[in-house]
Amino acid sequence: MRVYNFSAGPAMLPIEALTAAQSELTDWGGSGMSVLEVTHRGKPFVACAAHAESALRSLLAIPDNYRVLFLQGGASAQFSAVPMNLTASGDKVAYLNTGQWSAKAIAGACAQDLDVAVLADEKATSYTTVPSEGSFAVPADAVYLHYTPNETIGGVEFGYVPDSAGIPLVADMSSTILSRPIDVSRFGVIYAGAQKNMGPSGLCVVIVRDDLLGHSRSTTPGILEYKQMAESDSMLNTPPTFGIYLLGLILDWVAETGGLAAMGERNQAKAQALYAAIDNSQFYANPVALDARSWMNIPFTLADPALDKAFVAQAEAAGLTNLAGHRSVGGMRASIYNAMPMEGVQALIDFMTDFEQHNA
Amino acid sequence: MRVYNFSAGPAMLPIEALTAAQSELTDWGGSGMSVLEVTHRGKPFVACAAHAESALRSLLAIPDNYRVLFLQGGASAQFSAVPMNLTASGDKVAYLNTGQWSAKAIAGACAQDLDVAVLADEKATSYTTVPSEGSFAVPADAVYLHYTPNETIGGVEFGYVPDSAGIPLVADMSSTILSRPIDVSRFGVIYAGAQKNMGPSGLCVVIVRDDLLGHSRSTTPGILEYKQMAESDSMLNTPPTFGIYLLGLILDWVAETGGLAAMGERNQAKAQALYAAIDNSQFYANPVALDARSWMNIPFTLADPALDKAFVAQAEAAGLTNLAGHRSVGGMRASIYNAMPMEGVQALIDFMTDFEQHNA
Repeated sequence: MRVYNFSAGPAMLPIEALTAAQSELTDWGGSGMSVLEVTHRGKPFVACAAHAESALRSLLAIPDNYRVLFLQGGASAQFSAVPMNLTASGDKVAYLNTGQWSAKAIAGACAQDLDVAVLADEKATSYTTVPSEGSFAVPADAVYLHYTPNETIGGVEFGYVPDSAGIPLVADMSSTILSRPIDVSRFGVIYAGAQKNMGPSGLCVVIVRDDLLGHSRSTTPGILEYKQMAESDSMLNTPPTFGIYLLGLILDWVAETGGLAAMGERNQAKAQALYAAIDNSQFYANPVALDARSWMNIPFTLADPALDKAFVAQAEAAGLTNLAGHRSVGGMRASIYNAMPMEGVQALIDFMTDFEQHNA
Repeated sequence: MRVYNFSAGPAMLPIEALTAAQSELTDWGGSGMSVLEVTHRGKPFVACAAHAESALRSLLAIPDNYRVLFLQGGASAQFSAVPMNLTASGDKVAYLNTGQWSAKAIAGACAQDLDVAVLADEKATSYTTVPSEGSFAVPADAVYLHYTPNETIGGVEFGYVPDSAGIPLVADMSSTILSRPIDVSRFGVIYAGAQKNMGPSGLCVVIVRDDLLGHSRSTTPGILEYKQMAESDSMLNTPPTFGIYLLGLILDWVAETGGLAAMGERNQAKAQALYAAIDNSQFYANPVALDARSWMNIPFTLADPALDKAFVAQAEAAGLTNLAGHRSVGGMRASIYNAMPMEGVQALIDFMTDFEQHNA
């Protein structure tokens, strides 16, 4: 029996992609080899990677002047790679701090001998808000503005794309990419770990505007250097082949289920249903400001934290797994990425209603 | 039909491990989730990673004062990470250059503002030799000595572990780890991309002596920083979970087939058989010095290079794939890692004999 997995990542993947991978795991395309065994330099895998890139380009409508890189090290590697690729020592960079992932990105910049300007920090609201549009001024001499469109732990999401006042906008989209259409042309760099909406862990997708290539520091490890990776089609060294293969299967599934517009409608409907269940209850609560509520990660608390363990255990027994909140905040968290169907959200709502009736 | 895949990496994997992974790819251990979907922070995956580490420790008899890290970025990331973790700006480091992978490691060090001493360079023999034991002096003020025990492209292998004169010995074992027993206590750092003898691409194993932790430069990306990774059990960020899982399955297979002593005997027998077939022929030739011949990667040329394409095509049709030599050297190359059975080597020898009879 397949469960509904509310994990924040690695997370639920479309069963269609998993079944396809399973069926050919020991014989890929009649080659007599697993996709895990084929050389990345051979035509079959080069075509597989090209398919993943072109499917991503098509779904996100990525303009021609952007390069797509398939890297390793997760989004965390980009916390260092972004400043290493875009700045020189002493440069000014700007960040928005909306929670734990923003803070890690800021720490990555601070380690690179930069003048780090934090233009907004939502600490006063315990990171339950995002800065309102136009509430911060972007320094004209900053090299880029970095933000985290969706904070996986806090469940806080920007409802708008910040105006970066002409400097490149850099976004960690790990937990929101592919959840709805975006306008890539608004960004200088988009990066995203795959393990939420795109595939397995171990693959990080970077989408970078081509004028931003070629400005890296000489000490940048080659595997994180955008220009070398762009020029080698992400094969400066052996790429994470299985992750790229699975990304292709998952992108096919996204396209087959209607593309990003349809995906966005489903995701919005899922989130609205769960928030409504929380808001209509006296037993559950979500702390996030209404205009900053995430479609992907929905934290909620029970009226009595002493019931948390029972909630998690009974949910697990009902086939609703990984609902415990992040270890740093407690409570509950339901991550409802692309692969979570409305049926899974409805099953959670039904369980929550039942649990409340028995425990309120 | 399963083929014999002579790729240099990603490479043939044991079918037992592939079949096991396939059987549970949509339902791991009765969890109702794929191993690709489970959180790395949950007990099941933490146990899975601990199993992989303990199986590796057992097979390699890794002493207690060594840490095992599961990193990303391949061995190529370590070309930067080794100097970033072990040196300060201006330090002296020592390297042996035995071919293309050594050269990349040296380039990685040169990018980090170091005094790089290349103690031996086999350029004079076109990298068909290794420096003889005791033929180079290790500077007492060097921070470490780095070498490449097996050169995947040249098919050149050290028959001994160099004496590093008391400074830490660092080895890129990507293409030789697990091929036979080694004495880990001789080394300061061992690193190896998984995609030859250990699993899929995207996972790099680092084995580091614990006194070498904590000396990194402040600019080192966290995902490459040994101490932070050791202290977080390689989960500073989301690790490449599927690669770690598959590593565990493959290590189980190594143990079940007799461990590293038996593996070494099989690998030696496979290599001896193929070298004998080459040496006993007037049609095939291997350029490598007898005392430097690799057990893992065996390059060979045909008497007439005009026959190369026909050889590759006919071999492919006979179920012997990926025999074309590295794009930088041409000719043929048979990579015969752990998962290549003697039957595969014998099938190649039979094919070579037949091809020679028809074309000599």
